[in-house]
Amino acid sequence: MMATDEVIAEGMRDSDHANRLTARRLGIDTLDEDVIFMRSDCDICRAEGFDALSRVLVETSSRSIIATLYQVTSGFLRHSEAGLSESAWRRLGLDDGEEVTVSHPRPLESLSKVRSKVYGHRLDRQSLRTIVADIVAGRYSGIQLSSFITACSARPLVREEIVSLTHAMVDVGERLTWNRDVVVDKHGVGGLPGNRTTPIVVAIVAACGLTIPKTSSRAITSPSGTADTMETLTRVDLDISAMRQVVEREGGCIVWGGAVGLSPADDIMIRVERVLDLDSEGQLVASVLSKKIAAGATHVVLDMPLGPTAKVRSAEAAASLSRSLLSVAKSFGLKATIVTSDGSQPVGRGIGPALEARDVLAVLQRASHAPLDLRKRALSLAATILEMGGATAAGNGFGLASAVLDDGRAWEKFQRICEAQGGLRTPPIPAHFYPVVAETPGRVTAIDNRRLSMVAKLAGAPDAKASGVDVDAKLGDAVEKGRPLFTINAETPGELAYALDYARSNRDIFTIVKP
Amino acid sequence: MMATDEVIAEGMRDSDHANRLTARRLGIDTLDEDVIFMRSDCDICRAEGFDALSRVLVETSSRSIIATLYQVTSGFLRHSEAGLSESAWRRLGLDDGEEVTVSHPRPLESLSKVRSKVYGHRLDRQSLRTIVADIVAGRYSGIQLSSFITACSARPLVREEIVSLTHAMVDVGERLTWNRDVVVDKHGVGGLPGNRTTPIVVAIVAACGLTIPKTSSRAITSPSGTADTMETLTRVDLDISAMRQVVEREGGCIVWGGAVGLSPADDIMIRVERVLDLDSEGQLVASVLSKKIAAGATHVVLDMPLGPTAKVRSAEAAASLSRSLLSVAKSFGLKATIVTSDGSQPVGRGIGPALEARDVLAVLQRASHAPLDLRKRALSLAATILEMGGATAAGNGFGLASAVLDDGRAWEKFQRICEAQGGLRTPPIPAHFYPVVAETPGRVTAIDNRRLSMVAKLAGAPDAKASGVDVDAKLGDAVEKGRPLFTINAETPGELAYALDYARSNRDIFTIVKP
Repeated sequence: MMATDEVIAEGMRDSDHANRLTARRLGIDTLDEDVIFMRSDCDICRAEGFDALSRVLVETSSRSIIATLYQVTSGFLRHSEAGLSESAWRRLGLDDGEEVTVSHPRPLESLSKVRSKVYGHRLDRQSLRTIVADIVAGRYSGIQLSSFITACSARPLVREEIVSLTHAMVDVGERLTWNRDVVVDKHGVGGLPGNRTTPIVVAIVAACGLTIPKTSSRAITSPSGTADTMETLTRVDLDISAMRQVVEREGGCIVWGGAVGLSPADDIMIRVERVLDLDSEGQLVASVLSKKIAAGATHVVLDMPLGPTAKVRSAEAAASLSRSLLSVAKSFGLKATIVTSDGSQPVGRGIGPALEARDVLAVLQRASHAPLDLRKRALSLAATILEMGGATAAGNGFGLASAVLDDGRAWEKFQRICEAQGGLRTPPIPAHFYPVVAETPGRVTAIDNRRLSMVAKLAGAPDAKASGVDVDAKLGDAVEKGRPLFTINAETPGELAYALDYARSNRDIFTIVKP
Repeated sequence: MMATDEVIAEGMRDSDHANRLTARRLGIDTLDEDVIFMRSDCDICRAEGFDALSRVLVETSSRSIIATLYQVTSGFLRHSEAGLSESAWRRLGLDDGEEVTVSHPRPLESLSKVRSKVYGHRLDRQSLRTIVADIVAGRYSGIQLSSFITACSARPLVREEIVSLTHAMVDVGERLTWNRDVVVDKHGVGGLPGNRTTPIVVAIVAACGLTIPKTSSRAITSPSGTADTMETLTRVDLDISAMRQVVEREGGCIVWGGAVGLSPADDIMIRVERVLDLDSEGQLVASVLSKKIAAGATHVVLDMPLGPTAKVRSAEAAASLSRSLLSVAKSFGLKATIVTSDGSQPVGRGIGPALEARDVLAVLQRASHAPLDLRKRALSLAATILEMGGATAAGNGFGLASAVLDDGRAWEKFQRICEAQGGLRTPPIPAHFYPVVAETPGRVTAIDNRRLSMVAKLAGAPDAKASGVDVDAKLGDAVEKGRPLFTINAETPGELAYALDYARSNRDIFTIVKP
């Protein structure tokens, strides 16, 4: 046995040296969770006592991350190598062959705040600030994120906590400012397939001279998000300065929020919420409002469809959510109006990126087959925005919006916005379709939005842009036996078969009552 | 466009065919979470709309699992290949080159029960049964497990739920039965370093003719579990039939529970609890009792150390936990006694597998340097068991236990048990050590168990068997400046340096008050 300071000094040198590995890009996409792959029999794992799933600190000379360790027992990795997931590679800004050091991270302080929330204590502003900062820096594993999200559902956030969370989410990302007194925005609380009003609303509102810098999301659990639909018409992955140029020139834009970096914590949390199918009121409010505040909005209209298979299902839920949204918006000086609408059936005809784009174009181009429900919803939202934003007097909004849509100014503005974003495209057309027909005659009395969305997703939407569902019958329609209720559209026969299989084993997506 | 049944039929065939991939063992250890690696540009990902982190159904002709998908963009995987983690490979029982099919899994029913718990509803027996069955079958990702565990902490389980959870955890694993009226067991609630009474208690109790089929865990967050310590003395990874043979022959055993398959859900959940540092009363009770019931115990003694840095920190917490343990045990007809003990400082001298084994041997061999506190604790627990199990009358337990330890029968029995388990070994001795000394003279008034355990872990325990800490001063001891408080033991200089670094930046692990 030895016990001298020389041994210690040697140990220090050893451990410094031993903790260096050559970084190797493995090309593995693990989304937000940074992952490092190391040999289980490498010196570092043994010296540091790392196990599979340990959280480890990975450092370059200038950057550091906390990553989840997967141990490798086969030969595809050398002892001297550390394999890194795509997210870890990007976050560290590595080049192939660079060295990284690997060691134990300090315990995450903010996790003790999450535990305290689990046990029923309120989170103060500083706690939420550090939690959100750690989340955006990738310091939370999926397991830890899940615990935070579950805790905020099981111990619902009170107003003060929601305000603090919203603040924290805004502060951690980019924030736009505009040299104008009025900047308007809109948001749909979602859950209603085909409700693609945004492109029409932006075109009308911008044509009337208001500023509307709209960022939209891609689909999370739905067959299409506004960004997915717009992407079939023009580029949406603009960065923040390109977005600014479009808005300065045309007064409005419709871009993907993910590329702009507003409220980045939201993008990370929402992926875990999807897996858990948890969406607490507090987190929904912070998610919606943080994006609007970060975009620099002064006035926002919130479209809240209400129906048995929409996201908001009861008048009580709508009232509670509205109260929370308005109260939190007010504390930020953001003027908000909530428009509740019928959420009992899909809007327009198409469900899926390109199919919805077709409906949007039909409304803007005033085609004879344009879906009236989509047109009316867009006009109603645009009217509220025009009045809120002072473009016209109260009560005149609908008339102004209709005039601008009907005389072609909205369509003209939409084309100019698309040109500014990179050029107008023609949406793709699906290669395969198959109608699902009524098996009995009768009247349509209910449509299950959720399962209809599932059919569209199984057909390939939103990744297969042309895929989805066309709705052929609406509530109250009388249908004969054999008449199409909806048509499945797909890019490949495999996807068509997959969606049809589901539709055939869910024959009550449309409820038809005999006369 | 085509719209005929031939296209559909072709689609069905296509999708059947396209969903087959050749399985490849990647040798990646992801613990309990099954992971599949597929090319992001493979036909299945495109046809099925799979994203990174999608949960996918992977099937062979006879087995199926749900795995988390990581998408691969580099060339280390071919388009026709599916890479599998070690857990996925084992669970599917694959051979290299076998084919698997990959598709969307049905939504997990039991997750809606977890959500319902999040929103404050109680879980009934059937719900907990399906949740636990899905967990053991690997159908929960870490994110989903985390949500369940967090929900059970944020919405504490009531007695009825704890009973149901315990039932579910017992039923899903192996269960031992013994042809005897009395089968005794013990369990330590943990958190107290060096409290390695089990090997001594089992030896005494078995020497007195009682049956004590003891399964122990490895360390989870501590520097050593009983299984880690025993592994320096004999084999502990016996399967259930080998364990039975030892108990039939010697009346007792001390084996690792993980190899025996009792309450396997516990092993999975406990790893997530460790990451979250969450350990709710309900889950603790179900965890402890499910193991005892599955082991076939009729009488159990629970050792509950109480102290400011132990697991149970207040008299109120001890009372609440005791009530819950006794009440749930009773509903299973299991007779339980709780022995609360002083948890203010480490027990014995060693902290770490081999260092603790040395203390255990010293007590059993009645060495002059044997730690008296360890001896007394073991005798006290053995006494309670002997009286509960009817080996002696009430009040005579301590006398009997002392006699059996002092006349060498316990040491004799211990050697026979080790022989039956595979032979007695000599624990390893550390290569490097370094004393941490008092900086001022005074009296030791407090010892931080948690940070002392951290030093032992940084020195390499429990993976480096010889590593850990020797405690050189106890509460109430008067120390001079320069006198050792504890000694760090390590197998390598790097680990010694690492632990010392931590100890030097945490100089108040021992509180020394000047006289």
